[in-house]
Amino acid sequence: MTNLKNDRFLRACLRQDVDRTPVWMMRQAGRYLPEYRATRGRAGGFLNLCKTPELACEVTLQPIDIIGADAAILFSDILVVPEAMGMELTFGVGEGPRFPQPITCLADVKNLPVPDPEDELGYVMKAIEAIQRGLDGRVPLIGFAGSPWTLATYMIEGGGSKTFSKIKAMAFNEPATIHLLLEKLADSVAAYLNAQIRHGVQAVQIFDTWGGILSTRDYQDFSLQYMQRIISQLIREYRGRRVPVILYTKGGMGWLEAIADTGCDVVGLDWTIDIDIARQRIGHLVALQGNMDPSMLYAKPDRIRDEVCNILERFGHGNGHVFNLGHGIMPDIPVEHAKAFIKAVQEASPRYHDQ
Amino acid sequence: MTNLKNDRFLRACLRQDVDRTPVWMMRQAGRYLPEYRATRGRAGGFLNLCKTPELACEVTLQPIDIIGADAAILFSDILVVPEAMGMELTFGVGEGPRFPQPITCLADVKNLPVPDPEDELGYVMKAIEAIQRGLDGRVPLIGFAGSPWTLATYMIEGGGSKTFSKIKAMAFNEPATIHLLLEKLADSVAAYLNAQIRHGVQAVQIFDTWGGILSTRDYQDFSLQYMQRIISQLIREYRGRRVPVILYTKGGMGWLEAIADTGCDVVGLDWTIDIDIARQRIGHLVALQGNMDPSMLYAKPDRIRDEVCNILERFGHGNGHVFNLGHGIMPDIPVEHAKAFIKAVQEASPRYHDQ
Repeated sequence: MTNLKNDRFLRACLRQDVDRTPVWMMRQAGRYLPEYRATRGRAGGFLNLCKTPELACEVTLQPIDIIGADAAILFSDILVVPEAMGMELTFGVGEGPRFPQPITCLADVKNLPVPDPEDELGYVMKAIEAIQRGLDGRVPLIGFAGSPWTLATYMIEGGGSKTFSKIKAMAFNEPATIHLLLEKLADSVAAYLNAQIRHGVQAVQIFDTWGGILSTRDYQDFSLQYMQRIISQLIREYRGRRVPVILYTKGGMGWLEAIADTGCDVVGLDWTIDIDIARQRIGHLVALQGNMDPSMLYAKPDRIRDEVCNILERFGHGNGHVFNLGHGIMPDIPVEHAKAFIKAVQEASPRYHDQ
Repeated sequence: MTNLKNDRFLRACLRQDVDRTPVWMMRQAGRYLPEYRATRGRAGGFLNLCKTPELACEVTLQPIDIIGADAAILFSDILVVPEAMGMELTFGVGEGPRFPQPITCLADVKNLPVPDPEDELGYVMKAIEAIQRGLDGRVPLIGFAGSPWTLATYMIEGGGSKTFSKIKAMAFNEPATIHLLLEKLADSVAAYLNAQIRHGVQAVQIFDTWGGILSTRDYQDFSLQYMQRIISQLIREYRGRRVPVILYTKGGMGWLEAIADTGCDVVGLDWTIDIDIARQRIGHLVALQGNMDPSMLYAKPDRIRDEVCNILERFGHGNGHVFNLGHGIMPDIPVEHAKAFIKAVQEASPRYHDQ
């Protein structure tokens, strides 16, 4: 692997010295970029884009070239894992993802295999290799997967949900079924992330988008426990380098100590907590990633810059901060606003670092 | 007003002694009850049901008769306030609420009047009087309104939203517009709740369903500040009795101290925080209402009872707990499960009280 020209992101994940705070955006390879929309149009749909390594590579590199992020994140979708387990997955035009035949019983779960990522997800591995050639050491590449609980919500609800009534009914009434599913998902995700690491990603993020809909006890039982199971199976050092693990639970700000206790290196913050409070609570254990409200990018550039400065000041002096939005960038954000966000972090953050 | 035969709810709101923990459910007059669906069918739609005092009375009383709640809550909708301000409101079949002509600019806001609740919302006042005759002192009646921020989300987005991009863009780019709207809403809600109190409700709850989508600073600026403005205008004692104010922000568990500091009597908890932690943080200032995950009512009655016992044990011995769900009961919950929930609180809670 080429030596990295910009390793700020990896250093910040490990709470090492940096000259300024690194910054990237969740969903930075996305619809707000006209270049992304053009490539997606050529691919003929979202899932084709995920499955065509040269096009997935193309959109992964776009935000590095266009907005200047300090890390690239593999372009893919968390739901390719259940698809690799044999579940039919569709993305209708203007719709969210659908599993037309959701999981409904123990027999369904028993039938699910733990997929071989080199085989069923080989297109992801090819994309990673293409991206690394394209990046040529400019910035590190982040791999990712969904948390077992989050994947299970889609697999049981059959798509997105507002009430999550099916998965919760199963969790409360058929605990053996849900726990078997979550175990299989944890083992599938661990194998998948390890394959990503072997093929070249330099950090991994686990997206727990729906852990925050649970009570404290249920979060521990159904979400956190299985993320911990993943982390315990992960390759933590590869070719002499630590591979940082980022754990992000949207809506999980009440459980930061337990999240930091999983052995992850970085905790992702949404925007409902002040980062100084988060640093007081867990900054001695892990680095923090976040935490600007993604809707702030609707504001004019001056207001965006104010908010960036506010968050930098709250975090304060020292190491262990990866600047990011608290959730993915939205599709209707003007590109100029995304650029203003990245630039504001780059310009305003050096004063908080010694180097 | 008839003397109350069951005043446990009001006493618990004021952290006074009770023989057992009182219990009611948000949205207890709702679609999970076949009797409700029958009355709504006769009304010819949701909004007609809200606007026909004898039918609103009928559905308000149903859960008292059928499941035995310790308090009744006025059947209405938070969006009758913007409708009384002149905004057209529709509820399509199987859809959420819609404002076909949402607020888009300062001129729209300037045109909104602060309505006279005795006039434009007179049907609510008639419903309250009918309900009090029907209750005949069996249990107290709770009035309610939406928080200014929550009402504004619907008025600006034109209905429900996942991203809240329109209101956030306005909040960040046109602060004068949003603050004028929130001021008018706060004054309208305060006048409305005071009218409810004068017509017979014995407690009021402010529903801040969407405060939790904000960052800490924005929650303070756009939501909490205006709830405080309402509370400062409310009648706090009526005919010799304290009128408790309950403030509920879904997703606001990170801000409990600030919420308790508004001068409310009770803080409503969602299910993402353990009630013992909430009691440690603010139990010396206010009573707590909550906090079972409403999805737990999908579980079988034994599991529901376990969870009720778990929450009672966590709150522990002493006063200041109103048992409730952490959000509204869902329409597809079996009535037997709702009954099992109420019964479990009634049977398991006396041991936590001295009387």
